[in-house]
Amino acid sequence: MAPQKLKIGAAGLGRMGKRHAINFLNRSPRAELVAAFTPDPDELSWAKINLEPYGVTLYQDYDKMIQHPGIMAVVIGTATSVHAEEAIKAMEKNLHVLCEKPLSTSIDVCKEVVAEARKRPHLKVMCGFSRRFDESYRDAHAKMDQGLIGRPSIIRSQTCDKHDPSGFFVAYAAWSGGVFVDMSVHDIDLTLWFFGDDVTPKSISAHGITAVQPGLKKYNDFDNAVGIVEFYGGRIAYYYCSRMMAHGQEDTTEIIGTEGKLSINANPQQNLVNLYHPGGITREVPAHYYGRFEQAFVRESIEFTEACLDDKPLPLKLTNAVKAVEIGSLLQEALVSGRQIRFDETGKRIETAQL
Amino acid sequence: MAPQKLKIGAAGLGRMGKRHAINFLNRSPRAELVAAFTPDPDELSWAKINLEPYGVTLYQDYDKMIQHPGIMAVVIGTATSVHAEEAIKAMEKNLHVLCEKPLSTSIDVCKEVVAEARKRPHLKVMCGFSRRFDESYRDAHAKMDQGLIGRPSIIRSQTCDKHDPSGFFVAYAAWSGGVFVDMSVHDIDLTLWFFGDDVTPKSISAHGITAVQPGLKKYNDFDNAVGIVEFYGGRIAYYYCSRMMAHGQEDTTEIIGTEGKLSINANPQQNLVNLYHPGGITREVPAHYYGRFEQAFVRESIEFTEACLDDKPLPLKLTNAVKAVEIGSLLQEALVSGRQIRFDETGKRIETAQL
Amino acid sequence: MAPQKLKIGAAGLGRMGKRHAINFLNRSPRAELVAAFTPDPDELSWAKINLEPYGVTLYQDYDKMIQHPGIMAVVIGTATSVHAEEAIKAMEKNLHVLCEKPLSTSIDVCKEVVAEARKRPHLKVMCGFSRRFDESYRDAHAKMDQGLIGRPSIIRSQTCDKHDPSGFFVAYAAWSGGVFVDMSVHDIDLTLWFFGDDVTPKSISAHGITAVQPGLKKYNDFDNAVGIVEFYGGRIAYYYCSRMMAHGQEDTTEIIGTEGKLSINANPQQNLVNLYHPGGITREVPAHYYGRFEQAFVRESIEFTEACLDDKPLPLKLTNAVKAVEIGSLLQEALVSGRQIRFDETGKRIETAQL
Amino acid sequence: MAPQKLKIGAAGLGRMGKRHAINFLNRSPRAELVAAFTPDPDELSWAKINLEPYGVTLYQDYDKMIQHPGIMAVVIGTATSVHAEEAIKAMEKNLHVLCEKPLSTSIDVCKEVVAEARKRPHLKVMCGFSRRFDESYRDAHAKMDQGLIGRPSIIRSQTCDKHDPSGFFVAYAAWSGGVFVDMSVHDIDLTLWFFGDDVTPKSISAHGITAVQPGLKKYNDFDNAVGIVEFYGGRIAYYYCSRMMAHGQEDTTEIIGTEGKLSINANPQQNLVNLYHPGGITREVPAHYYGRFEQAFVRESIEFTEACLDDKPLPLKLTNAVKAVEIGSLLQEALVSGRQIRFDETGKRIETAQL
Repeated sequence: MAPQKLKIGAAGLGRMGKRHAINFLNRSPRAELVAAFTPDPDELSWAKINLEPYGVTLYQDYDKMIQHPGIMAVVIGTATSVHAEEAIKAMEKNLHVLCEKPLSTSIDVCKEVVAEARKRPHLKVMCGFSRRFDESYRDAHAKMDQGLIGRPSIIRSQTCDKHDPSGFFVAYAAWSGGVFVDMSVHDIDLTLWFFGDDVTPKSISAHGITAVQPGLKKYNDFDNAVGIVEFYGGRIAYYYCSRMMAHGQEDTTEIIGTEGKLSINANPQQNLVNLYHPGGITREVPAHYYGRFEQAFVRESIEFTEACLDDKPLPLKLTNAVKAVEIGSLLQEALVSGRQIRFDETGKRIETAQL
Repeated sequence: MAPQKLKIGAAGLGRMGKRHAINFLNRSPRAELVAAFTPDPDELSWAKINLEPYGVTLYQDYDKMIQHPGIMAVVIGTATSVHAEEAIKAMEKNLHVLCEKPLSTSIDVCKEVVAEARKRPHLKVMCGFSRRFDESYRDAHAKMDQGLIGRPSIIRSQTCDKHDPSGFFVAYAAWSGGVFVDMSVHDIDLTLWFFGDDVTPKSISAHGITAVQPGLKKYNDFDNAVGIVEFYGGRIAYYYCSRMMAHGQEDTTEIIGTEGKLSINANPQQNLVNLYHPGGITREVPAHYYGRFEQAFVRESIEFTEACLDDKPLPLKLTNAVKAVEIGSLLQEALVSGRQIRFDETGKRIETAQL
Repeated sequence: MAPQKLKIGAAGLGRMGKRHAINFLNRSPRAELVAAFTPDPDELSWAKINLEPYGVTLYQDYDKMIQHPGIMAVVIGTATSVHAEEAIKAMEKNLHVLCEKPLSTSIDVCKEVVAEARKRPHLKVMCGFSRRFDESYRDAHAKMDQGLIGRPSIIRSQTCDKHDPSGFFVAYAAWSGGVFVDMSVHDIDLTLWFFGDDVTPKSISAHGITAVQPGLKKYNDFDNAVGIVEFYGGRIAYYYCSRMMAHGQEDTTEIIGTEGKLSINANPQQNLVNLYHPGGITREVPAHYYGRFEQAFVRESIEFTEACLDDKPLPLKLTNAVKAVEIGSLLQEALVSGRQIRFDETGKRIETAQL
Repeated sequence: MAPQKLKIGAAGLGRMGKRHAINFLNRSPRAELVAAFTPDPDELSWAKINLEPYGVTLYQDYDKMIQHPGIMAVVIGTATSVHAEEAIKAMEKNLHVLCEKPLSTSIDVCKEVVAEARKRPHLKVMCGFSRRFDESYRDAHAKMDQGLIGRPSIIRSQTCDKHDPSGFFVAYAAWSGGVFVDMSVHDIDLTLWFFGDDVTPKSISAHGITAVQPGLKKYNDFDNAVGIVEFYGGRIAYYYCSRMMAHGQEDTTEIIGTEGKLSINANPQQNLVNLYHPGGITREVPAHYYGRFEQAFVRESIEFTEACLDDKPLPLKLTNAVKAVEIGSLLQEALVSGRQIRFDETGKRIETAQL
């Protein structure tokens, strides 16, 4: 008898939604993509060609999809604004949930998802932070755990996108939560992974500019921002996020310890080719984060599937996803207000008036 | 109706055979692994756990496997000595064939496979040279085709394995065909790809040593060898193969043209991590060729499947596989005899007496 | 007739003083080291062997040295606390001055030196910021000037020393002015060079920890610090300074423009050697800043000499040296106080009460 | 009293001659350039501006220069054809000699120089192989001596020049001795250094093409050549020399041992700058060997001076210079004839007839 497979439905078939659907359809051996939902006609057309022939039932109504016969889990790749609602509905139907980050740009809404998940501890509910599944970050984390760098004390981490002159990111800024929530949330998640998720911020400072996308200003957003989060216990993380890279995606992290340092992706590269030409020696760089992290997304599908089927622990806690968004929101607030934000040792915010 | 899948059987479940089987089972969406053959009890035990539960019928008799109902193709990963016989039997049953390299260490036997394939032009018969499916080699080839390096004139290519002190390679030398046939055949295949498969050797020189595996001498083999193949038309390829690397697998290629150069894997690396420590900055290196080429093998499975189902051309000709082994054998002869071998412009060997 | 040489005296023969003396003695063809001053007996012993035999007159009194017959210039490498006084005295004797950085850790004292220099515009008075003379920084600056990166908008720059467990830096903290003044002043100087020296800070934030040198706390100093300086006009510089590197000196700079990026020393290295060993591939890193910048110091001597003899402009303004220390001091204040500092567009500080 | 300096004369003020003259004039503190000789009017004009004002007496007659009062040594940077004669004349005048490589392209003439030097063991006579003075090669050699790579067994070394379309190298081929003598002699010298100068060749093979300089054919020379030298005792060196590089000078060496590998300049670079642009990440490469080896030439001047003044041993033997040219000539012969050359264990050549 063939081993049971995880019957999963995919909600949302936009850029990332398509990739999740394909990864569960084809690249996660123990999963079976049984259903997909999208309200969008173009996405539906794509699905008729790329999913339906392989046994995937298509839905234009999310509520119906989560009642698909035998469905055990959903992967949510819709717009951020409906992530939480869809996640909660799925849990209510007793489905495991893999949700694209962030759960929500609202902390309160995030917490509702967590609360719902707490009620159903038998369900696997994960917010997808892809770098947790990347081989290089995992190797770095293992090396840190082996003590190779002593006590990790400083993290430098950046998420830098290739400049997209189309105006997409200006429109997107209306509801993205801001660059620190949209982009640096990955770096903050890494911070919680490498420093431990019990770290408490002591103070947060951030500064930004709009160098190439002046339209961002009307949404109080920036195309380049730098932030520092100081934690109690003698640790600092500092972040750079940018949408201005000429050369491609450049997501670099350094974990600096008392006895050594680890870098991940200090030398971005598309592949192992170098071209030697009259102007020097050149290597290319991935144009997008999927070019950098494709294998991590595949691994995410595979491990989520295993966790659901075998009742194994997930590699990241749902509460971390909330904490990462929370710190991202505070960075964004510091950025927009131009004011440092401070906290006492219990994590309670110290109002400026008290300073 | 679900699209047709390629029903394939896997022959041989040794180290590479297992990987092929898993790649067709799980990582080639349009293939369906329906059968597997191995005469080996240990491999059979592995298959009962890893293949049988997923609908793969197991055989201990190759002839029976190729009569499995509905089977359309075989992937051959058995010992080199039976590759050719199994390939021919499969073709006789009208099956497509993906055969691990080499078809045979005997040129005559290789040619029998080619002759059989010529009789059945509707069949896809491919010898798996994995580097042809590697993203970096493909990118380099595309850049060459764009004219970025002018006319390719010199190729330097090496296949260097991590030193394996177990004695495995001494035993293996008894039937491997020698280092140039076993290892450099990949570099020779790349030469045919980058220079064109119509190149004609003009002279072949080779020299080798046994530095760490003295037991190789009794098989007339070497653990380090360097060879030069000069081609008519002003082109040279030179090769280094070694089983002595301390640090891991290091397969590097340079294509040097009249107006530029391409390098592939000039800086071997396990992943994107660097460790900074009191002794300097260190990156790790893959221990084995599968660590370097895993994604290429997956792509090979996927593209072989597509070629069979859609009757698309294969990315490499079967005759190239023979030519690569032929040049490898000549290098090996030059290595063992210590004599240069020369050819006239028609490819006919010039006997030493004539020199 | 031999061309005139610059007769120069060296004040201070400590670690850097010795190097300056030797560079003017041996590596600056148009300079002639005629005198050297040190009050320290050990340094004097060194000078009797290494300077006196080559025609250098030794002094234990600075005032006497600057009256040495024919002396035209001094290079000041004494303790920071006497830099300014010695520089002013030299100018009063009509001598050109090359002074180690900083002129002083006090802005007021720095300004006295500048005021004195303004009175004597025929004198060359330079504060030695060695990176201005480094080939790589110069190449990067030239590439920026060619417009290769568009408008420079973000600078990331770090000065990171190899960890010195001797306790030297704890003692040194008593009078160094703090890590931002002592270390990051180089990065700030680069900022003025790449952004233009007319930039006006808008806000300054900084955070630090003492991870390996707890003794620093009593001097209100830190062994790791991160700071952000936002400038009016849409530019940000962010700095990291550390005395905790396990692997060696790592001074890295990135200049990020609207159309490209330049990095300097993204891959620190001692030389061009890589060692391939069972643990991977390792390169070494310079242990000290002189290992990284030796050739820049030589070039500084040569160009200072040329500027004096040929009345050519110096490559950096004395006022920049003051501005760099000023920004460094503000970063240090923000670091120690834990409070952001803000400025209006005229550069006037906005008091917290006004916020 | 000032310590004695090495009074030295420079013969030849062409491209390299000028550099030697300047290095002894300005960058070798214990040397004093007292004289210079050139028969060339342009070079003489240069010398009147750049040497004479600094106390250097100019000569148009070599014989007169070596009688300059007090002269103790000569540095010979004239055309190769007169190296040997000038070296011998200098020795006859009891002068130390630093001669550009090669002593001669004729082995017999080389041996005359050695014979003359043997008669005068108190003289320092050195042929300048600059890589022996390069920090990276020295570091690699020290690491090998520490046993970090086990027994060195394979050397790969290449000397590759940037393509010069001016036709200079075609004219030069008339008397250069051929590419293996002119270029690979450096790699052969490194081989003698890393393998030991007592190694005995067992066989020599070489192949070449003329890809970009067809005019070379009339001088029996090539613009790309690959050669293998197998040594008795289980060691192989293989070389690549080229004048076709689009990107610049690329001189790379690998020393492969039984327990590790060392590479020198595996990643050629002009400096520490990387430019990130829409096409990727680019670094520049030195255009000429002096860009790569300038500091090595300076160190050569300094150490030659020290050896003369302090009667210290030179870092390389004169006989090695002959042996390197000898092996280079044999490679060139194998290249031109297309025939392998073999030797018995005593180093005696085995005639083809005997094969």
